[in-house]
Amino acid sequence: MPLPAGKQKQEKRQRLLECALELFVEKGYSNTPVSQIIAKSGYGIGTFYNYFQDKEDILKTLLDEFAGQIIASVNSYFSQEKDLYKRFTESKRIVIEVFAQNRQLTEIYCRVAGTSDGIDQSLKQFEDKLIEFFTKNIEYGIQKGSLHAVPAATIAHGILGMQRYLLYKWIVLKEISEEEMITMVVSYNEAIARGLEKKNLSTIQ
Amino acid sequence: MPLPAGKQKQEKRQRLLECALELFVEKGYSNTPVSQIIAKSGYGIGTFYNYFQDKEDILKTLLDEFAGQIIASVNSYFSQEKDLYKRFTESKRIVIEVFAQNRQLTEIYCRVAGTSDGIDQSLKQFEDKLIEFFTKNIEYGIQKGSLHAVPAATIAHGILGMQRYLLYKWIVLKEISEEEMITMVVSYNEAIARGLEKKNLSTIQ
Repeated sequence: MPLPAGKQKQEKRQRLLECALELFVEKGYSNTPVSQIIAKSGYGIGTFYNYFQDKEDILKTLLDEFAGQIIASVNSYFSQEKDLYKRFTESKRIVIEVFAQNRQLTEIYCRVAGTSDGIDQSLKQFEDKLIEFFTKNIEYGIQKGSLHAVPAATIAHGILGMQRYLLYKWIVLKEISEEEMITMVVSYNEAIARGLEKKNLSTIQ
Repeated sequence: MPLPAGKQKQEKRQRLLECALELFVEKGYSNTPVSQIIAKSGYGIGTFYNYFQDKEDILKTLLDEFAGQIIASVNSYFSQEKDLYKRFTESKRIVIEVFAQNRQLTEIYCRVAGTSDGIDQSLKQFEDKLIEFFTKNIEYGIQKGSLHAVPAATIAHGILGMQRYLLYKWIVLKEISEEEMITMVVSYNEAIARGLEKKNLSTIQ
């Protein structure tokens, strides 16, 4: 019995994404021509172009869905936790865990930056989504009076930059374990949230 | 009148480093064979191998001297400033300014990560030096009683990770200006130093 047309389309698209992801990790993004993705999928050339414009489009789609998954995971946690301090620190644990659970996408994310303008634009779109999401959460904390009136977007860049560097140390350099990476991210965000200085904050603002 | 032998040697080594740096930026590190560095320098093959083992050795040397320059700049500032809060924030301004003044090295630093094991080991050596330096400074602040007993190495990773990400946004994506980058780095480190939470810190420790 044939699958319903919508589901079948969805499965083809999904298979193309998975084949591309595997090849990008195995051979590197720049060394993977579209023809190999098509060959691996077993579909015809036309099928690929029904779903994607080119290789960059497939990378953008992979990263876009990944960003969506990260944000959905944090939002699902937020719906159950109202304490703003916990939300600040634990949401970073969730983000880094989603990265850790998606090794292949993380590998690509950590390896391809800086190698071509097209790739950098795809990455930028991905990172902008995360930055925007982090920024909104910090602004919410400021608005609720639980955080100082810090420059929210700047802090968001710091949070992403730190995670990005630790992901690279974990998956590219293999210098830290997954557990060490998660512990570092959480304790870093705890330190940010609590503040580094011992002085009473009200006196130095 | 010929130059004294020591000075002449120093100049040859320096010229080889400069030629390599220019080619790495212009054509990319992986697309620059040693033969082109030699051709550009105008020296013979033997001269190159008097100073360097291979291309990776020249990259390592460039990054090593760069790390030395960054650390020396901060140490020179530290010798004149004793206030620990200012030392914490202003030293980050100095670091990012040294990066900004060395556009070519920054460009390489931001583009080559993740592209090969050899490169990653060279970068790791460079970053480890900076992390070690930041860690020591934070430990000094903790020891002097001006900072909480935070995990110093973790915070150091956060500081470097943030700078790394903003350098990439500045020099690869061209999304922020040099001035914006410096402002963000300084205000981020101010926010870390002051702490994000309004609560009296002594009550939540």
